Amino acid sequence: MKQKRFFLEESKIPTQWYNIQAEMPTKPLPLKNPATGAEMSAEDLYPIFAEECSRQELNQSDAWIAIPDKVREMYGYYRSTPLVRAYGLEQALDTPAHIYFKNESVSPIGSHKLNSALAQAYYLKQEGVTNVTTETGAGQWGAALAYAARLFGLEAAIYQVKISYQQKPYRRSIMQLFGAQVTPSPSMSTRAGKDILTATPNHQGSLGTAISEAIELARTTPNCKYALGSVLSHVALHQTVIGLEAEQQMAMAGEYPDEIYAAFGGGSNFAGLAFPFMRHNFKGERHTRFIAVEPTACPKLTKGTFEYDFGDEAGYTPLLPMYTLGHDFRPANIHAGGLRYHGAGVIVSQLLKDGYMEAMDVDQLEVFDAAQLFAKSEGIIPAPESGHAIAAVIRRAKECRETGEEKVILFNLSGHGLIDMTAYDEYLSGNMINLPAR
Amino acid sequence: MKQKRFFLEESKIPTQWYNIQAEMPTKPLPLKNPATGAEMSAEDLYPIFAEECSRQELNQSDAWIAIPDKVREMYGYYRSTPLVRAYGLEQALDTPAHIYFKNESVSPIGSHKLNSALAQAYYLKQEGVTNVTTETGAGQWGAALAYAARLFGLEAAIYQVKISYQQKPYRRSIMQLFGAQVTPSPSMSTRAGKDILTATPNHQGSLGTAISEAIELARTTPNCKYALGSVLSHVALHQTVIGLEAEQQMAMAGEYPDEIYAAFGGGSNFAGLAFPFMRHNFKGERHTRFIAVEPTACPKLTKGTFEYDFGDEAGYTPLLPMYTLGHDFRPANIHAGGLRYHGAGVIVSQLLKDGYMEAMDVDQLEVFDAAQLFAKSEGIIPAPESGHAIAAVIRRAKECRETGEEKVILFNLSGHGLIDMTAYDEYLSGNMINLPAR
Repeated sequence: MKQKRFFLEESKIPTQWYNIQAEMPTKPLPLKNPATGAEMSAEDLYPIFAEECSRQELNQSDAWIAIPDKVREMYGYYRSTPLVRAYGLEQALDTPAHIYFKNESVSPIGSHKLNSALAQAYYLKQEGVTNVTTETGAGQWGAALAYAARLFGLEAAIYQVKISYQQKPYRRSIMQLFGAQVTPSPSMSTRAGKDILTATPNHQGSLGTAISEAIELARTTPNCKYALGSVLSHVALHQTVIGLEAEQQMAMAGEYPDEIYAAFGGGSNFAGLAFPFMRHNFKGERHTRFIAVEPTACPKLTKGTFEYDFGDEAGYTPLLPMYTLGHDFRPANIHAGGLRYHGAGVIVSQLLKDGYMEAMDVDQLEVFDAAQLFAKSEGIIPAPESGHAIAAVIRRAKECRETGEEKVILFNLSGHGLIDMTAYDEYLSGNMINLPAR
Repeated sequence: MKQKRFFLEESKIPTQWYNIQAEMPTKPLPLKNPATGAEMSAEDLYPIFAEECSRQELNQSDAWIAIPDKVREMYGYYRSTPLVRAYGLEQALDTPAHIYFKNESVSPIGSHKLNSALAQAYYLKQEGVTNVTTETGAGQWGAALAYAARLFGLEAAIYQVKISYQQKPYRRSIMQLFGAQVTPSPSMSTRAGKDILTATPNHQGSLGTAISEAIELARTTPNCKYALGSVLSHVALHQTVIGLEAEQQMAMAGEYPDEIYAAFGGGSNFAGLAFPFMRHNFKGERHTRFIAVEPTACPKLTKGTFEYDFGDEAGYTPLLPMYTLGHDFRPANIHAGGLRYHGAGVIVSQLLKDGYMEAMDVDQLEVFDAAQLFAKSEGIIPAPESGHAIAAVIRRAKECRETGEEKVILFNLSGHGLIDMTAYDEYLSGNMINLPAR
């Protein structure tokens, strides 16, 4: 029997995260204070984020950062996640390519998001914070933070993008089951929300609007801080546990990836899988291709511009040097709430600018065609977000069928789609359409 | 770091199922033809079931039956499932008991049901059958069979209990995504369905009604056979892969269970975990307690009578010697569709009668209290069905807190509850009530 899944012994679960900032040939540009234009320091971020996360955010010197024991213990509840050889998909495509995926969907919450939620909740608790607030799109991040907050005894308040709140009621229920308060965003409970709804009645929400509301709540609530699920560099740092495991697991399989694919929203699942492998490219030891896959409806990497912009709609965040569609960009209502964000993280933006990675976009129908084929051949129903990576991999595997190339392809199955069945219903009914960027 | 999860290498995944019938001190009574009263032979079952399954059903001589290579290869897509030490739950209960669970919820379909679906679909395909039909309650079995049918190229038609079809629309979508036809039962598409709806307008359905419809479809459709998800002895056989893995994994953990708990509907997840351990009790090597946990609303083991009865509402099945509430019993609409069945499998019934196992019942609210506590402490949202086992384990662990007993407790987490969030919503809103047997 050919081995299908590869696990690490618990002792092999990484003890350190990989901080790519320390080894990037060109460091990211600094964050800036929008009022003064001054470079932001870690201390400037303390009022919003956990202090340790603030330091990690700007750390450009330490390539390895220790995972706290308690966080690693909680990782042991679901990690290592399996590295899986997609024999079923390979057979369905009749491709000579070797397709592997890292299955982050087996986390209790159903996605990779827990890797950073546990770390952030831990640091907040250590620092004496009692309340945490955040945004969520499809709800993967919100569910992860709700669970992590519960574990560490924090009160959680979550702003969920309104369209996702309506499309995915089960995710709201999951967050509530863990004891979190969930509010659809934009709401009338913050100044930012009121301003957005006044300027744009019936605004369906976006990650940008929800971030504004959460930051405002953190600023106006005693002992409350904010936790972000993607985009920022400390989130990418926490997610590198994915790639560090995958590197060991690929070695168990006796292979090394020629190409690595991941869906792209703010960058957390892409960074998590790609960055640990990318360090070997920096050193010239390997020449892996890294491909971020975004929705055609929200194409910041392929159609955005590299410039300083806000991370949220209301302009509460520092100015970030990144590929962006503009912080007031309102993405179409695609069924991939986690990818409906206007900008890319600063590290990824710099790497893309410098040619260390590539980006491509795929349309919604291609994503769901790919997701269904994956479900039928591997048995796992993917999150629509993860479907973007699958669509790109399938395109490539079909090319390999033509050329005969035995490429070793690795992608991140960032989450499952069991809470996204309304989207699959729309697809199966024939009513789904492609949505353009607007 | 204390080890939390135990996996087997793929080479250690069982190569044989354990057929408890061969080693039971008292063999189950024969199945009977309801028209003639004659004992049923395997050949008599061929028109309905796969021939190999029919032979397995009545096999009382071979204790070990080889798992076909192809089925074992597909097991490798998700097996071994982890054995997990529930440190989080132990801590929440402050109990000296050591609590372990076998996490079958990580199967692609979200429950243990795939273990038998793959086997049954494989045999049907081998025997040249093209169409398969079945019943499903909550949809765990239907989803599993839909996926297995797809894998082996069979057309699948599934009758889903009407109340579950309405309560759990996502499960219907999952079955449809895999290409199955799904019909709410009782329906007007079979004689059995029409008769039931005429006699009892607005009948909400039960596993008994859905089985009748599926059997009728199989009988009246060329080259179509029926596959059952629980109750029958060959289904229990296929599920023993759970306990055979768990036995090896408990050894890895350096312990042996004093008590084993599983929720009880027709018996498949209970049998799967319990039977391999029970063989050591038969030999006097061990004295493990085995406890089946059923809903108060459907108490066949604790309140039923041992007698010959039909397995379905319309009376299409052979007569089965079993604990039953009567084949026309209509269970209340509890949120555990998989446990709404009037009878118990013949093996389990005999074992209960002979004192090799015990049974208890729990109310719906206790189940959801337990399920939420489990979710908050272990991060996994359990299926309401599995919540029954958890409720019983929590009761016992609290007793151990009082007595100081360090009992080693093992239970089966048969599935996750991500598709059951409407039930959790009802619970969280305070509108859930206990429902009596009627």
